[in-house]
Amino acid sequence: MMSYSVTVLDEAAAVVMVSELRNRQDEVPEAKAQVVGFDPRKAAGFENRVLLSQLQYEEQGRMSFGYRTAQSGLGLAVTVDHELFTENAVSVESRMTADLGRRTYRVRAEAGRPIMVVKWAAYADGPATSDIANLAAMTHLVLDDAQVVGREVLIEEQQEWLADYWEKADVEVVASTPGVQQAVRWCLFELAQATARAEGRGIGVKGVSGAGYEGHYFWDTEVYLVPFLAHTYPFLARRTLRFRIAMLDAARARARALSQRGALFPWRTINGSEASAYFAAGTAQYHIDADIAFAMCKYADVSDDLNFLLTEALPVLVETARLWADMGFFRGAERSFHIHSVTGPDEYSAVVNNNLYTNLMARLNLRRAAQAVFTLAELDPGRYAEVAATLDLTETEVTGWQEAASAMTIPYHEWFGVHPQDEDFLNREVWDLDNTPQEKLPLLLHYHPLVIYRFQVLKQADAILALFLAGEEFTTEQKRADYEYYEPITTGDSTLSAVVQSIIAAEVGYQARALESFMEGAFVDLADLHRNTGDGVHIASAGGVWNALVYGFGGMRDYNGDISFDPRLPQEWSYLRFGFALHGSRIRAELTPDRITFTLEDGPGGIVTLRGQEIEVIGSDPVLVPLFGQGLNLPTLTGHVPLVHGRPATPEEVTVGLPSEPVE
Amino acid sequence: MMSYSVTVLDEAAAVVMVSELRNRQDEVPEAKAQVVGFDPRKAAGFENRVLLSQLQYEEQGRMSFGYRTAQSGLGLAVTVDHELFTENAVSVESRMTADLGRRTYRVRAEAGRPIMVVKWAAYADGPATSDIANLAAMTHLVLDDAQVVGREVLIEEQQEWLADYWEKADVEVVASTPGVQQAVRWCLFELAQATARAEGRGIGVKGVSGAGYEGHYFWDTEVYLVPFLAHTYPFLARRTLRFRIAMLDAARARARALSQRGALFPWRTINGSEASAYFAAGTAQYHIDADIAFAMCKYADVSDDLNFLLTEALPVLVETARLWADMGFFRGAERSFHIHSVTGPDEYSAVVNNNLYTNLMARLNLRRAAQAVFTLAELDPGRYAEVAATLDLTETEVTGWQEAASAMTIPYHEWFGVHPQDEDFLNREVWDLDNTPQEKLPLLLHYHPLVIYRFQVLKQADAILALFLAGEEFTTEQKRADYEYYEPITTGDSTLSAVVQSIIAAEVGYQARALESFMEGAFVDLADLHRNTGDGVHIASAGGVWNALVYGFGGMRDYNGDISFDPRLPQEWSYLRFGFALHGSRIRAELTPDRITFTLEDGPGGIVTLRGQEIEVIGSDPVLVPLFGQGLNLPTLTGHVPLVHGRPATPEEVTVGLPSEPVE
Repeated sequence: MMSYSVTVLDEAAAVVMVSELRNRQDEVPEAKAQVVGFDPRKAAGFENRVLLSQLQYEEQGRMSFGYRTAQSGLGLAVTVDHELFTENAVSVESRMTADLGRRTYRVRAEAGRPIMVVKWAAYADGPATSDIANLAAMTHLVLDDAQVVGREVLIEEQQEWLADYWEKADVEVVASTPGVQQAVRWCLFELAQATARAEGRGIGVKGVSGAGYEGHYFWDTEVYLVPFLAHTYPFLARRTLRFRIAMLDAARARARALSQRGALFPWRTINGSEASAYFAAGTAQYHIDADIAFAMCKYADVSDDLNFLLTEALPVLVETARLWADMGFFRGAERSFHIHSVTGPDEYSAVVNNNLYTNLMARLNLRRAAQAVFTLAELDPGRYAEVAATLDLTETEVTGWQEAASAMTIPYHEWFGVHPQDEDFLNREVWDLDNTPQEKLPLLLHYHPLVIYRFQVLKQADAILALFLAGEEFTTEQKRADYEYYEPITTGDSTLSAVVQSIIAAEVGYQARALESFMEGAFVDLADLHRNTGDGVHIASAGGVWNALVYGFGGMRDYNGDISFDPRLPQEWSYLRFGFALHGSRIRAELTPDRITFTLEDGPGGIVTLRGQEIEVIGSDPVLVPLFGQGLNLPTLTGHVPLVHGRPATPEEVTVGLPSEPVE
Repeated sequence: MMSYSVTVLDEAAAVVMVSELRNRQDEVPEAKAQVVGFDPRKAAGFENRVLLSQLQYEEQGRMSFGYRTAQSGLGLAVTVDHELFTENAVSVESRMTADLGRRTYRVRAEAGRPIMVVKWAAYADGPATSDIANLAAMTHLVLDDAQVVGREVLIEEQQEWLADYWEKADVEVVASTPGVQQAVRWCLFELAQATARAEGRGIGVKGVSGAGYEGHYFWDTEVYLVPFLAHTYPFLARRTLRFRIAMLDAARARARALSQRGALFPWRTINGSEASAYFAAGTAQYHIDADIAFAMCKYADVSDDLNFLLTEALPVLVETARLWADMGFFRGAERSFHIHSVTGPDEYSAVVNNNLYTNLMARLNLRRAAQAVFTLAELDPGRYAEVAATLDLTETEVTGWQEAASAMTIPYHEWFGVHPQDEDFLNREVWDLDNTPQEKLPLLLHYHPLVIYRFQVLKQADAILALFLAGEEFTTEQKRADYEYYEPITTGDSTLSAVVQSIIAAEVGYQARALESFMEGAFVDLADLHRNTGDGVHIASAGGVWNALVYGFGGMRDYNGDISFDPRLPQEWSYLRFGFALHGSRIRAELTPDRITFTLEDGPGGIVTLRGQEIEVIGSDPVLVPLFGQGLNLPTLTGHVPLVHGRPATPEEVTVGLPSEPVE
């Protein structure tokens, strides 16, 4: 619902007000024809129509349109209605085509007599089985209800909802640099826009803000958004995860197609089917299975929703664990467990063996699935028996997962003292980023993948993301060594990267870089840093901004739902406030340079750990804890040569190269 | 030119003779619509027209058609003419459409009065710049000339040509099993069909026998056909290689597109541009550069055509060497030279590091290019200076190639005593071929590439091909160990494989397997062993049959053009005769169980080596050399577990696995 008012001030005038509803997707504007070159991050610019017109009709001034998507057959209906409030003389005209509804008001406006047009629109969508006329009928019902309730009430409800959202999700920052608070709020607002009404349909990488990546869903939801939702709006987290649960059968079929047991979720999808074209950077990202399991556990842990984990989520945990157990294999006298031919988060490497991130997340997946199964067996033997029968599950299989997890290969290079991104990663030449001209970035638009794969160069955090999500598996020294190795060779050509780099930079002591990386994430769209905000907002990055604020500067960790803090307030900041969930209780944290304050806002509260010390947060009084500093503050990293043992790698350790004459 | 005769014997009858010329490619037969599933080895079944009709006309009974290929714009013209010889009453009718020329003869045939129709057809083709009307005019000139010369003379000339071909190319076999000689001759005849009139256009993988792989050119020509041509019809070898020379500029541009110096020849092409869609099994086969350099050297060596090498071939040798020098890199304290992210001949592995075959062939390429440049500098300093200026070549660059060659990484696994196909190959699980059902072969039609890549399993000879082409780099013991490792895990899903396996089996002492593999190659089309002969004859395999006869059973090697023999006549055979080239001289070899005879047929002759002994073949008298046996004869290999140190690998050494429930 939106309203427009015009009042002519001095003397009478002719006013024309035009209200349109357009199917922009299937227009062929000149701009489209001008696109030169291919950018995989944009919508592909479909050759044929995307929305096939199914119905269009006008009924008592309401214009309704029904479409079906050409490939997947999904249904869509939209109805638009107008109310006119004016004392001027008006003639009204409507026009409808398959892709356009236009209502034109020609007003003889007298001075001082306002004209107000209120525009109501309602959308309904459904699967390929849905009846388009029914969808259209639903939009009429929605409009009927809304108009009965009325404009003022709707606005009020919306304000209430937003007030509640801000109370729970807001992060307050007092920084010496201007614009930080505004950028943070902008990101949080975008998150509300993208997630609040996803309603079991998945959250597109651009939310509903643009056509980039054709509105498809990737792992962004699970890794970048669910933690935020779980801590602020847990019921949205659960609803989002249900979207994956609904896709389980399609994921089972996909696993069969890849000759695997269990389920393999699509890397890119709109309806449960794999929609990525190039499998080395698509299907090979098997880690999505573990990402989904991770997100389900994360939600259940911080919300204390064991019931969700042991009922709805359990089949997903089981089938994803099955995939890993089947796909990996035990090898050698020490019987270590290997996972081959996968692509990790960093798409500048593809189809590698024992990717650190994948193996760590698969291990988590295997462990948590086994734990969930055994917990259910203990708590509810009857239902366990049922579930085991339905899923064809035996104790032997489940202990097999634990064995695979225990034997999981975690690549580590003794001499370098770093975890290789994958088994072969350190054998490559390092891409000479110091001598790569700015106009050759992002690399993916200027170099053939075969060229990029030949180098140590990262599109985005991969090992560094593992240091964050599976941080309890590493010592601080290991994290610092890994960060020092990977940070200099990470281009950040993906917007998923900066926010993660910020978190680990803060943890290991590179405070200036942490803030720099955070600012990249916070301003990626406001400053159009990747020059593609026109294709839509980077929702995962916006989620990552919350992560960087809470996990990075707040220093929070929530492994298994247990909350700990080791704050890293930037020197330029004097205050940071955020909310988080402690096993279902809502707590507010306020961080200043010399103390952190916890206030219980909802629920019974409990214990958080602050730099190893247990802090009880119960009752209504804020708990103030003094802080002695904000961790290490190392001199910032410079250049693009990876560090080993705290110094730039020597030419004997890594050679640096640049491909010849890159393609234009 | 072809003729059909009909004579009605007993009483008069109405006879209708129809002669057609059809563009089958652009017909839409029902058969096409029935194809289920995708087979990359077939022609893709183009959605749109391939040949765009440019002209069609009838002139004095001749029907001419002109086309242009839709994508590449190549020109094609064909003219068909008919002569009728009969004393019967005849009415003639012609019909022409864009894709069909039909001439119908309605004959009131009297008993004993013959009807003969002679059909003449001439084709002309040309590049995208060619004028189709000119091409059609050329076909008319060809027909005019042919008709002036006349049918009998044309037949005679053809017979002469074939007699000459058989004299030079025939291989005679006396075997206890029937059909061997026939199969061999059939292969040789197919080679004549495919190569004799290629005329600088490249040799399609199906010759002119079918539409499989859309008539595209791959490495088959250089590795499987040029050795045969060089030893039998050297001028055809040279003409074939010129086709690559003509593509050098396109290959330079392709190297630029892949950010490399030098030239990168397309893995699959029709006009010099890369036509492979999936780069991991296409462009990543950089080895094609080395294959082309190899073939040029092979031809020049055995034909003593140094002039070709130092003039026409030199830019190709230089630009391919450049690619390797640029693409590889020196690494580590020992400064070994590494080539990453390539795919070797075996397409069941893709985008690997230090593929044995690629590195060995690249080393050959680098060495021979340097040698050619320095030879030219020595022989003709003036022309060298010119060439160096044209190619922007310095002595430093050329010595750089020699350094790269000397430092080339040759992967070798000390404990297994085998050369890994690539750096990671031995780390994979072994595909359990013993338990793979027959209906799941070939693997490429039943499993996703990501599944296949995860295993030690070969589509075709890779390391084993290296043992053949770069055999001088290995000891016999190494070859045996490598053969014993790879033979059990090679599916032979490519027809390029069996003939190569046969050669190395013969060399290392697996005589029974050598013969088995040979028979697979010899009968691949006659017995339709791969069930796709309908898409066209396997020309490379036919070339490989000659290789298996001469290099395998004949035991010939021709490194650098020096000819040596270590014969391996199968126990079931009593006689093998073939011709070969010794630095330009033509020699005939005749092999029996207890001797080999060399007869100089043309040229001054020279020295061949027989099991280490130098044999002078000069003058007109045959040289008879007694043989003491035909090498080792080991018990045949069984099962599909690779051998290490002569026994099946243990589960501690390799684990064996099978993917779950393969996709249907």
